[in-house]
Amino acid sequence: MTKNKIKSSSYLFPRPVVLIGANISGKPNFEPLAYVSSVEDKPPLISIASYETHFTNIGIKENGTFSVNTPSEEIIVGTDYCGIVSGKEADKSEVFDVFYGELKTAPMIIKAPLNLECKVIKTLAIKDITGGEIGHELFIGEIVNAYAEEEYLTEGAPDISKINTFTYAMKQYWKVGKPLAKAWEVGKKLMTD
Amino acid sequence: MTKNKIKSSSYLFPRPVVLIGANISGKPNFEPLAYVSSVEDKPPLISIASYETHFTNIGIKENGTFSVNTPSEEIIVGTDYCGIVSGKEADKSEVFDVFYGELKTAPMIIKAPLNLECKVIKTLAIKDITGGEIGHELFIGEIVNAYAEEEYLTEGAPDISKINTFTYAMKQYWKVGKPLAKAWEVGKKLMTD
Repeated sequence: MTKNKIKSSSYLFPRPVVLIGANISGKPNFEPLAYVSSVEDKPPLISIASYETHFTNIGIKENGTFSVNTPSEEIIVGTDYCGIVSGKEADKSEVFDVFYGELKTAPMIIKAPLNLECKVIKTLAIKDITGGEIGHELFIGEIVNAYAEEEYLTEGAPDISKINTFTYAMKQYWKVGKPLAKAWEVGKKLMTD
Repeated sequence: MTKNKIKSSSYLFPRPVVLIGANISGKPNFEPLAYVSSVEDKPPLISIASYETHFTNIGIKENGTFSVNTPSEEIIVGTDYCGIVSGKEADKSEVFDVFYGELKTAPMIIKAPLNLECKVIKTLAIKDITGGEIGHELFIGEIVNAYAEEEYLTEGAPDISKINTFTYAMKQYWKVGKPLAKAWEVGKKLMTD
């Protein structure tokens, strides 16, 4: 074995890409994020980690709501643009056409194939657990509603092969590849009884 | 717009796949997880959400340590097997050859291209924030060390094009696709000044 110790970093390959939506002073703003994870099924919860200086965080804390929008390749330019330009410097409310759901304050992107409307149920400042001076804020949101157009669904559920989304790694976006094997199935080869 | 309300679920496409390693009563055990996210860079932190009844959780809480192992296609059968069979019913300590780092209690998979050795700095029982009776436990770990063999690195950092890992969606594993566009670059098309 020739394992090298490499720079300690929170490596994860590849990361999903989502656009987080929040209203700031009544106007929609979006930021692309890859620090995102499902954390519970009943009720459905999702966590996002966003750096505390980001404009989006202001809106999430202002309203206690946010949206998680899964982009398609069709909106990759707008997605990336939202990661280059801060809402503090540019009005990003015109980048995407939006709609609102029952929470009223979580802007969702019409052209994104999948939208999750979320209510914050827990906020954790990472610096409070590390003792650092600045850092990410972890927001755990309950998915109050999920939305998708018919063309992205198979039997009522979002179908990744129709969504045409992408992932992130090494300062690049990557296509999702082909199916490789069935989960809870390919491993049966190792079962002895 | 014809957005349908669909079943509320914590959709995220595609999710990364990692193998979480923990020692239980001194023996290594692994579980594949897709509820995983980076949450901080300085210091590097990663979060995992594992259902509280899982065997792995016992070991994480016993030692305050765990490992995050990025699988390659070469170990997809063992990865999936660990998700089918619980360590409560079968001894999974022989599925993979392991090594340990300075924490001594976080077993890491030699054949996994990338290993993160983690110390738990925060544990959050999701049921404590939802009021539910049972649920996932969210563990936030600091990456104390990261390990990879030379063949998976480019200029000292893990290279996704060498790792040959896979993702998870819709009860299947999926290949990582081709590079699509550069991040913080493709979006410049929308900049006006």
